[in-house]
Amino acid sequence: MVSSGVQVLGTTFSPFVNRVRISLNLKSVNFELIEENLAAKSDLLLKSNPVHKKVPVLIHDGKCISESLVIVEYIDEKWSGDDGVSILPSDPYDRAVARFWAAYFDDKVVPVLFKLSFGPESERVALIEQLAEGLVPLEEAFMTCSKGKSYFGGDNIGYTDIALGSFIGWIKAIEKMSGIKVLAEAKTPGLVGWVNKFLSTDAAKKFVPELEVYVELLKKMQA
Amino acid sequence: MVSSGVQVLGTTFSPFVNRVRISLNLKSVNFELIEENLAAKSDLLLKSNPVHKKVPVLIHDGKCISESLVIVEYIDEKWSGDDGVSILPSDPYDRAVARFWAAYFDDKVVPVLFKLSFGPESERVALIEQLAEGLVPLEEAFMTCSKGKSYFGGDNIGYTDIALGSFIGWIKAIEKMSGIKVLAEAKTPGLVGWVNKFLSTDAAKKFVPELEVYVELLKKMQA
Repeated sequence: MVSSGVQVLGTTFSPFVNRVRISLNLKSVNFELIEENLAAKSDLLLKSNPVHKKVPVLIHDGKCISESLVIVEYIDEKWSGDDGVSILPSDPYDRAVARFWAAYFDDKVVPVLFKLSFGPESERVALIEQLAEGLVPLEEAFMTCSKGKSYFGGDNIGYTDIALGSFIGWIKAIEKMSGIKVLAEAKTPGLVGWVNKFLSTDAAKKFVPELEVYVELLKKMQA
Repeated sequence: MVSSGVQVLGTTFSPFVNRVRISLNLKSVNFELIEENLAAKSDLLLKSNPVHKKVPVLIHDGKCISESLVIVEYIDEKWSGDDGVSILPSDPYDRAVARFWAAYFDDKVVPVLFKLSFGPESERVALIEQLAEGLVPLEEAFMTCSKGKSYFGGDNIGYTDIALGSFIGWIKAIEKMSGIKVLAEAKTPGLVGWVNKFLSTDAAKKFVPELEVYVELLKKMQA
């Protein structure tokens, strides 16, 4: 582990924070998670991310970086080359494809997850359908990007894997609570296989909370 | 000019497309703009960007890349080093800052511009106030990033300049039609100076349409 005085302001269950934790873990960077209480944000958080006042914030060398995907790119660039682990691929076109799908996920899928968690119960069935539809293009993306390998990043997890994979727990909790399969073998066989492989990687497994943690959290949010 | 068989699917007035045109121009890459009729999208557009069906699309080496900021990064990486022009800075932290502010602009400012252009007249005064407020953090960002120089990128325009600058015509048209100053010397002196400098750069001036073009367009959108 590289020792570097790296801190992450966040919560253990936030998928956005887990993008950062998985990326640091992948790069073998030692870090301290400073747990935030989002109901009573710390002065450190308000000072570190005055614009959005949100987690995650990465604090490194006295500098603060916000926005999960911006942080992931920073980590990839700052700790590059030491042991050959790259988060983004090296080819500019492949990099663009990875960024495209991460942006797609944040624009089209994440807002549905939020509505499912905080919105009215009456809309949930329609939203789950919308969620499942939003994941379909990612099945095609997986088939194209993985080129027959295990991950979007090929043989190893990369940018798209991290961007999407951090949200698996949340999606599984929605499936569990609604009794409706969002990722089903029939429609998205590639993604179903990818989920299991992603969750078993060293980088991800310690940072994706147990399903029951998300179910409890979701119950609270929906209440 | 590098000759390279580069095509951009777009419209001359779209700020998103102009991000791409300015970036290519900055890199001295010759390209052809294939004008799209957004009311009757071409088969080429639907095939090139099947997910979002939106402009801009960059076509290069038979590959299609979508999402304006993703394309800007592709251009920066693909045509790097030839003549020393970089769009993103080299330092990972400075790159993160540039990406942060571009994302901020797209998340917080652009949606207000859309509402102002397509939403009901009754909300316009409140939205213009919201727009002006949304620009205030960018004044601070400019002061920090420019380090006393002319642009967010320092001595030369860079990623944040392109991301924000492409929207200047739209903002000015809103000011003109409402009679309300959004960028005023009193509140955002740095940005006011930056706007004029940005519009006078070789890379930008040929691609930012005249104010009257935007005013006419805005009248149509608001009608």
